[in-house]
Amino acid sequence: MKKVVLAFSGGLDTSFCCIYLTKDLGLEVHSVVVNTGGFSDEEIAQIEKRAYDLGVKSHTTIDETEDYYHDTIKYLIFGNVLKNATYPLSVSAERVCQATAIANYAKKIGATSVAHGSTGAGNDQVRFDMIFQTLIPGVEIITPIRDLKLSREDEIEYLNKHGVEYSAEKAKYSINKGLWGTSVGGAETLTSNQYLPESAWPTRITSTEPQKITIDFVKGEPVALNGNVLDSVRVIQELQALAQPYGIGRDIHVGDTIIGIKGRVGFEAAASLITIKAHHTLEKHTLTKWQLSWKDQLAAFYGNYMHEGQMHDPVMRDIEAFLQSSQATVSGRVFVELHPYRFVILGIESDHDLMSSKFGSYGEMNEGYTGDDVKGFSKIFGNQVSIWHKVNGSGE
Amino acid sequence: MKKVVLAFSGGLDTSFCCIYLTKDLGLEVHSVVVNTGGFSDEEIAQIEKRAYDLGVKSHTTIDETEDYYHDTIKYLIFGNVLKNATYPLSVSAERVCQATAIANYAKKIGATSVAHGSTGAGNDQVRFDMIFQTLIPGVEIITPIRDLKLSREDEIEYLNKHGVEYSAEKAKYSINKGLWGTSVGGAETLTSNQYLPESAWPTRITSTEPQKITIDFVKGEPVALNGNVLDSVRVIQELQALAQPYGIGRDIHVGDTIIGIKGRVGFEAAASLITIKAHHTLEKHTLTKWQLSWKDQLAAFYGNYMHEGQMHDPVMRDIEAFLQSSQATVSGRVFVELHPYRFVILGIESDHDLMSSKFGSYGEMNEGYTGDDVKGFSKIFGNQVSIWHKVNGSGE
Amino acid sequence: MKKVVLAFSGGLDTSFCCIYLTKDLGLEVHSVVVNTGGFSDEEIAQIEKRAYDLGVKSHTTIDETEDYYHDTIKYLIFGNVLKNATYPLSVSAERVCQATAIANYAKKIGATSVAHGSTGAGNDQVRFDMIFQTLIPGVEIITPIRDLKLSREDEIEYLNKHGVEYSAEKAKYSINKGLWGTSVGGAETLTSNQYLPESAWPTRITSTEPQKITIDFVKGEPVALNGNVLDSVRVIQELQALAQPYGIGRDIHVGDTIIGIKGRVGFEAAASLITIKAHHTLEKHTLTKWQLSWKDQLAAFYGNYMHEGQMHDPVMRDIEAFLQSSQATVSGRVFVELHPYRFVILGIESDHDLMSSKFGSYGEMNEGYTGDDVKGFSKIFGNQVSIWHKVNGSGE
Amino acid sequence: MKKVVLAFSGGLDTSFCCIYLTKDLGLEVHSVVVNTGGFSDEEIAQIEKRAYDLGVKSHTTIDETEDYYHDTIKYLIFGNVLKNATYPLSVSAERVCQATAIANYAKKIGATSVAHGSTGAGNDQVRFDMIFQTLIPGVEIITPIRDLKLSREDEIEYLNKHGVEYSAEKAKYSINKGLWGTSVGGAETLTSNQYLPESAWPTRITSTEPQKITIDFVKGEPVALNGNVLDSVRVIQELQALAQPYGIGRDIHVGDTIIGIKGRVGFEAAASLITIKAHHTLEKHTLTKWQLSWKDQLAAFYGNYMHEGQMHDPVMRDIEAFLQSSQATVSGRVFVELHPYRFVILGIESDHDLMSSKFGSYGEMNEGYTGDDVKGFSKIFGNQVSIWHKVNGSGE
Repeated sequence: MKKVVLAFSGGLDTSFCCIYLTKDLGLEVHSVVVNTGGFSDEEIAQIEKRAYDLGVKSHTTIDETEDYYHDTIKYLIFGNVLKNATYPLSVSAERVCQATAIANYAKKIGATSVAHGSTGAGNDQVRFDMIFQTLIPGVEIITPIRDLKLSREDEIEYLNKHGVEYSAEKAKYSINKGLWGTSVGGAETLTSNQYLPESAWPTRITSTEPQKITIDFVKGEPVALNGNVLDSVRVIQELQALAQPYGIGRDIHVGDTIIGIKGRVGFEAAASLITIKAHHTLEKHTLTKWQLSWKDQLAAFYGNYMHEGQMHDPVMRDIEAFLQSSQATVSGRVFVELHPYRFVILGIESDHDLMSSKFGSYGEMNEGYTGDDVKGFSKIFGNQVSIWHKVNGSGE
Repeated sequence: MKKVVLAFSGGLDTSFCCIYLTKDLGLEVHSVVVNTGGFSDEEIAQIEKRAYDLGVKSHTTIDETEDYYHDTIKYLIFGNVLKNATYPLSVSAERVCQATAIANYAKKIGATSVAHGSTGAGNDQVRFDMIFQTLIPGVEIITPIRDLKLSREDEIEYLNKHGVEYSAEKAKYSINKGLWGTSVGGAETLTSNQYLPESAWPTRITSTEPQKITIDFVKGEPVALNGNVLDSVRVIQELQALAQPYGIGRDIHVGDTIIGIKGRVGFEAAASLITIKAHHTLEKHTLTKWQLSWKDQLAAFYGNYMHEGQMHDPVMRDIEAFLQSSQATVSGRVFVELHPYRFVILGIESDHDLMSSKFGSYGEMNEGYTGDDVKGFSKIFGNQVSIWHKVNGSGE
Repeated sequence: MKKVVLAFSGGLDTSFCCIYLTKDLGLEVHSVVVNTGGFSDEEIAQIEKRAYDLGVKSHTTIDETEDYYHDTIKYLIFGNVLKNATYPLSVSAERVCQATAIANYAKKIGATSVAHGSTGAGNDQVRFDMIFQTLIPGVEIITPIRDLKLSREDEIEYLNKHGVEYSAEKAKYSINKGLWGTSVGGAETLTSNQYLPESAWPTRITSTEPQKITIDFVKGEPVALNGNVLDSVRVIQELQALAQPYGIGRDIHVGDTIIGIKGRVGFEAAASLITIKAHHTLEKHTLTKWQLSWKDQLAAFYGNYMHEGQMHDPVMRDIEAFLQSSQATVSGRVFVELHPYRFVILGIESDHDLMSSKFGSYGEMNEGYTGDDVKGFSKIFGNQVSIWHKVNGSGE
Repeated sequence: MKKVVLAFSGGLDTSFCCIYLTKDLGLEVHSVVVNTGGFSDEEIAQIEKRAYDLGVKSHTTIDETEDYYHDTIKYLIFGNVLKNATYPLSVSAERVCQATAIANYAKKIGATSVAHGSTGAGNDQVRFDMIFQTLIPGVEIITPIRDLKLSREDEIEYLNKHGVEYSAEKAKYSINKGLWGTSVGGAETLTSNQYLPESAWPTRITSTEPQKITIDFVKGEPVALNGNVLDSVRVIQELQALAQPYGIGRDIHVGDTIIGIKGRVGFEAAASLITIKAHHTLEKHTLTKWQLSWKDQLAAFYGNYMHEGQMHDPVMRDIEAFLQSSQATVSGRVFVELHPYRFVILGIESDHDLMSSKFGSYGEMNEGYTGDDVKGFSKIFGNQVSIWHKVNGSGE
């Protein structure tokens, strides 16, 4: 019997796929759920139970949280990646990680096909398709929901027919949770002019007292929270637990989908926003002007291209090499203050701080250079533009 | 008697220059103050009185607010320019505008020299020097404070000696106010790890009730506030009056000075921050992916290079041509909610909204394309990377 | 009877389409050939005759040479566009121009469908499809060769069956000729390691005596050859007539196709290569450092994106605005020497030459600045890197 | 007695410095010549003799050829760096290498000062000043020629006065030779419109018969010539010996100097030009589209910034990390044909060739995808622009 690996979430679409792949296509279904830090143990257990209830041959949970951090999140921090100056790309990054893990699993168990429950309308289908065709080129990709063009009602009826109960009620918002943030889509995000109501956000605001915290970075990676040295994944998780109840890091992202239309989605991502802004501030003190400039350009591309599912293009490895190199001196402590709905980067301390008063403070004379040096500098620095105006007449 | 034009602010340094240029150098001093929207009528009158008290031959106030908007601010809005993702470049932009206005004034009255009160330690000297040497190349540049390397005490003693009283007390913070924001430097900003205390910020927080407002844009320029059609300068001024009492737009900028050292400065700039974020959101709905991407790259350079005083390089005109062209469809209304210390972009409405549901919403099937189209797209979009992995062995 | 507009070249594929659209699909065929400067009057007449012989309802020749220059070639000159430092993108540019002209024609005559003879294997199908779906979104696109997957032999048999004779012999090389160059594909270009033999190049080498010529540019556009003022299209055509017999501008381009695989094609394009190199040299004398730098980046994207058929993305208009602005001072005369297989740019003369000895020659002292100025410049220009090394220890 | 390290070339300026530093400044002169592959053993011996004749305390020859290749040339090859699409930056790269070697030598022998013979008119003074102030910040920089503003005649008179004979005749052209090319400045290059005459070029044309050669690359580095495996430095040297007598790689570079004026210089650099074009062709076959694109952008900056003497900015290490990563698959053989004054890249062979016919040739149908896939691709790839035109009315 031929093996199919199914990317399984326990929702309607992938539940349908379980039955359909087994009954209609006669395949041996091996369901997989990839945890990128968003599922609790209870949720993982529920998903597993549901898979076996649906008759899969085997169900596997792959915890990719550590790999997810090391292969992706780390570079998003190095690059201070916020798509369109707003969105930490949490869903995009997760999908790439999940698709890659599933491809590797399919290879490992010798599956002849791999299935995902994407509809024909979103980004995920492209990410899954491309990563599968790249990493497991001989393995057939099956996408029942996209191919059969079934409605929600059709799927429920099919499930009922096969003895599986499924409530017809649909959640108002679609929530996706992972290490790097939680997205919230539906209702208002389908319009251009409405904001999500308080009730739509997954986290309730329970922290209101301002609080000062510190984050330590070593070579660009977060390594301690409030002085407690932790694994980087733990720093992010504990920072999230601390900061999300303030309502920090909520916003709506508007951007280009892979398929060319514009999409809008809410997110709450306190830990990512704080980590990125803290890291960026540390970089402003420790990197040279052109390091900052080139990092911006490369990281913007890196984020967009990862968003488009192209994480396995070797150019991504090249950019990662640049980003890694740039972090050599990005070590130090960042002081942050948390407030309801917002945070303030108070300042930094670093042995690599280029603003070190040892070498002259801005606005104060120092031993490094004289006013005459600057006079000469201005003359030469402005030389070409000055000549241009002389030659072209506007300087007269 | 030879004419010198003096960039005059009424402060200690330029007061010293008045006397020094007249008495020691025997020049006819024509003082000028350039208003970029930061001076009130009272302040302008005080500066004028002070100039004549110091014995200038003439004193002139040049109101550059409109030109400042049209020549510079407009493009900073088009480019969503926030240096290092933070600072609206208010001081940098002003200095360029002021130096240009002074150069034109010196040309107009036939001055043989031009003087500014910059010390040898900051950015301003470079901006003034370069713009003067470019726009009025034959005119001598005199910089008494930089050249004489006088201390504050020396200057006060000199003034007293010439019968001018000046209080020895120095303000704790140096404040610079203009249309695009107010900067605050001193004490904490000279360290890397301290934030400005509440008392250091120029504006007191007096607004605490959340408030919804709208800003209308036409081809990228703000043209109405809460539906009231106004000159763009007035939109910015009224928005500032409305939003600054919330404490919105406060932050500390850390960045590279022209002379290579790192500098840190506080600022409050509610109107700039809100205008830019509102404008950017409108663009995310109305511009194509590559318009957004190239605008980011060009605008980052534009901001940095203007910051370095290079506004008269013809490449700046070329970038402005790009930015102007890109704004053709950036028209619509943006909904914003003001809160103490923060604001939320609620959404937009635009006839040019590419997210228009007429052409399919993200995540829902539509008539524009089918799941099969996307399947084909994924195949081809991932073709090169797939081939790369086949050729280089990682896809097996 | 429903009207279909057919992009017609007179070759096997489009001849097949004529019959197939008429007979099998029952459409009224209006064939069109778009001349982008590559067809002689004889060829145009032959194509017309062939169309009517194949039974089209009407045949139209659209001469797009002037528009092609003004809408596309002009900007390729402004941008010195050579894809991968080699290829003037002649075929890519033509296809975009042709597809646009055909779309406009279809709109004009009220066609309900439009057909092209592209196979499913190349770039052209993507360019035609995308431009049609953008400019005439309601019009159906018919692609018989791609859809029916017919072999060459199948097509000939079909034509014979319908009384049309067609020689089964296939030309060894596929040649495509236009204003901006002639491409040569086949045999050796399908390998990675073989070069085209002398016999494969369309033009015979008949000029061997070195010859000096001049090209005059006004605001970036070629306006005179050897002092004869001509329309820019004529400058290019006469330069081509003069230079191609030397064998100048021959090379093989290797690059990325739109569909992700690598392609290789020979080309001879004397006029484009000489015009671009002459123009670029003039720019090196007349533009500032950052104009040259940004032009390179924008033009590389412009060329690649046009190559991919995306000419109607508004970002292309924005880049054109930049490029147009940058040409304000690119006026002057360029001296070129032609030799067999190569040419030399001898030098330039321009009123806008920034190397003008009036402002100091490189390597000689001048009045603009002193050695002390440069000393100060070096100090400040190197300040940040110097501080970096002090802070990070490598400077000790 | 205080030690000064003098960058010594044996020419007039540095000969003057020898005497002046010893006699007028009372310093112990340790002269150094850094060989970057341009000096023969005889020249090295002559320079040494001359140094001791001028009374230096010690003279040292530092052979930096290998380091020069590994620290700089290698990356110029990886980046296909040709400034303004023309110049291999041979002189710029050398100066940086020489200044770095001299700084390290000064540190090693504990010199309290370092001297160079630059005038106040060129690029070299900036490179030397900046690199010395960065790498040996406590060491005084002495520049007699720049500071004393001596004319050639003054220097000769001074030398004669101290018993040193020096011919008053000046060479018409100034020649600078190194591993990566030979520059030729003077007479015609000081104008904008004249080309160098045959007699000005250092190498005589003695090879006229066309010749086919091969260059093998491993991870981007040249490792064999005509199948002979050699050290990369040797590949370059032997290629130069073979190709320069054809007159290959001659051209005139026009570009921006560090000090803002335009400069023009001739060069002959057969080995660099051939190596770069061969390497680039190999990359076009083996790298992905975005690897090629980003390499271009980063390498252009890398070349320009190195040209400006900023090689010790850490951003250069970051770019090198990117470039090194990108070369992982750039291995293979390139076929080149040499002709008088020109060369042709015939083709390549590589195990990493993405054009491999195994995965479908351009223009021919293959198993990887179908015409329907491309149809879907075109639909989605053109989706956004199509929507833009619908929304903005131009698509009707």
